[in-house]
Amino acid sequence: MPTIVVDVMPKAELLDPQGKAVSGALSRLGVSEFSSVRIGKRFELTVEGEVGEDVLAKAREIADDILSNSVIEDVVGIEVVE
Amino acid sequence: MPTIVVDVMPKAELLDPQGKAVSGALSRLGVSEFSSVRIGKRFELTVEGEVGEDVLAKAREIADDILSNSVIEDVVGIEVVE
Repeated sequence: MPTIVVDVMPKAELLDPQGKAVSGALSRLGVSEFSSVRIGKRFELTVEGEVGEDVLAKAREIADDILSNSVIEDVVGIEVVE
Repeated sequence: MPTIVVDVMPKAELLDPQGKAVSGALSRLGVSEFSSVRIGKRFELTVEGEVGEDVLAKAREIADDILSNSVIEDVVGIEVVE
């Protein structure tokens, strides 16, 4: 069954305390390869049947209105897999 | 600067209460295009400089050991962007 993947990340200009915590943990553990970590959400929406233009439009609509909070988050990607 | 994106999803055989809640909200709002919703995490690791094989190997290691909980989650993707 096709799946639509929606990626949501905290806006670049906002602090991301979860990401900061992971970043701090990495450096305490001696991992120095990564200069920063940001953590967002990945939604997998399962579609029964075909993914037509109407279904994709609906996915874009709920990504902006329901799955993300546009005050603090950006929808960074919507793609169909399988 | 290159970024390594790590995608982590709850294991398929586990309930995903967050996803279930969103799925229920969608159907209450009259959105019927999507039969199920699962919610995972998307990590963006910023790398200073080149992403060589060693950096990717380290990313895979922390994805399995630190960024995900292998009891309940799967790492579903690791890719370099930019």
